[in-house]
Amino acid sequence: MTMFEAQKKKALERLRIRGADEEIAGIIEKINSFDDFFTTSSCSGRIALICIPEIGAKREAKFIGKWHRPVTKEEVLEAIKLKSSAEASEKGEVWLLSQSPILHVSCRGLEKAKMLLRIAIQSGFKYSSIKAIANSKDNEKAIVEIVSTERMDVPLGKDGVMFCSEAYMDFILSKANYMLERGKGKLKRFYYGLKEVEENLFLRRKG
Amino acid sequence: MTMFEAQKKKALERLRIRGADEEIAGIIEKINSFDDFFTTSSCSGRIALICIPEIGAKREAKFIGKWHRPVTKEEVLEAIKLKSSAEASEKGEVWLLSQSPILHVSCRGLEKAKMLLRIAIQSGFKYSSIKAIANSKDNEKAIVEIVSTERMDVPLGKDGVMFCSEAYMDFILSKANYMLERGKGKLKRFYYGLKEVEENLFLRRKG
Repeated sequence: MTMFEAQKKKALERLRIRGADEEIAGIIEKINSFDDFFTTSSCSGRIALICIPEIGAKREAKFIGKWHRPVTKEEVLEAIKLKSSAEASEKGEVWLLSQSPILHVSCRGLEKAKMLLRIAIQSGFKYSSIKAIANSKDNEKAIVEIVSTERMDVPLGKDGVMFCSEAYMDFILSKANYMLERGKGKLKRFYYGLKEVEENLFLRRKG
Repeated sequence: MTMFEAQKKKALERLRIRGADEEIAGIIEKINSFDDFFTTSSCSGRIALICIPEIGAKREAKFIGKWHRPVTKEEVLEAIKLKSSAEASEKGEVWLLSQSPILHVSCRGLEKAKMLLRIAIQSGFKYSSIKAIANSKDNEKAIVEIVSTERMDVPLGKDGVMFCSEAYMDFILSKANYMLERGKGKLKRFYYGLKEVEENLFLRRKG
C-alpha cells in the first residue's frame, strides 16, 4: 500500500465515524470513488453566528449558532439572547457569516489536482485553488480547496449591544439565505461535472 | 530569452505604465528583483462601495466608491447620494466591502512557488494559495495568490433605499478601517520576510 493509499484509508475511516452534511454526501462519495482522490474535510455551506474578541482572531471565535439551511430572524435573535444571558459580562463582537460550501481533496499528483480544480471552477467554485503540495518525492500529493465566491461577513454588535435594526436583519438574512441556496446549486453542478469525467474515463477505457 | 523571461519583461512594462499603490510598491519591487518571480497584479487593500444587480454577479458590479485608506461615514454617504441622484431609476443592491491586500505572482517552477507561499502564510496571509499551474513543459510556471483572511461584505441597501442606520454605519466603518490597517501591517511583515529570504540566499551564495 502506498503512502497515498494509507492516508486515504485513514481519511475514509474518519469520514465514516464523523459523517458529512447530507447535501454534500453524494459528492464526497463520488470523489472518494476515484483512486486518485480522497476528501479530508467538507461543509455544504452554512450560516453562522460567531463571537470574536477581535477581528482576525478567528481561532478564539466561539460559535453561537450554526445552520446548514435557511434561517429565520427569530432563530438568530434567540441564539444571540441565549448567549447574552449566559455570558453577560463577556466582551466581544457578534458577526453573522454566510459561508460557501467548502471541500478539501487530496489528489495523487499535480495533473489530477489540476483536473479537479478545472471541474470545480467550471461548476462555479471560482475561488478554488491548490492549497498545498506535499514535499516528498515518494508521495506527490496536492490539496485542492473547492470554494465559491458567495460570502457575507457582517458585524451585528459588540459587548452585548446589537447595532443593527430588526428590519435590517431581515434584509441581511434574506441575502444570507439566498447565498446558501446558490451554493447548494453549485454543489449540484459540481456533482454532474464529476459524473461527466467518470463517463469520459469509462469511454476512453473502452476505446 | 525564455518564455518566462519574456512574460516578465511584458509584465514589468505594464507595471511601469499602470503603476501600483504606494503601500505595496516596495514589495512589488522586491519580488520583481528575484529572477524567478514577477508580479502580475496587486492591490494594497481597500474599502469599496459597489452596486450589484444580483449576488454573485460580480462582473456586472459597478464601483460607487473605492478607497485605499480609512474612510469616513460622510464620504460613504456622499458616494451613495451621488449614485442615487444620477441613476435614481436603477435597481440594484449597494454593498460595502473591506478587501485584503492581494498580489498575484508568477513563479518559475513549483518549488519557488511553494517557497513564496510559505513566506506569505507565515506573514499572516493565510488564504494564500496556488491559483494555477501552466501546462506546458517548457514553461513550468505557477501563479501564487497572496491574500489574507480579513474581509467584510455587508449589504447596505437596495434600489436606492438604505436599510442600515447611521449609527450602524459608524460601527461597520470602524471595523472596515481597522481591517484595512491590519492588512497594511501584514504587508510590512511580508516585506521583511522577503528580505530575510534575500539575505539567506546571499549568505548561501557566499558560503
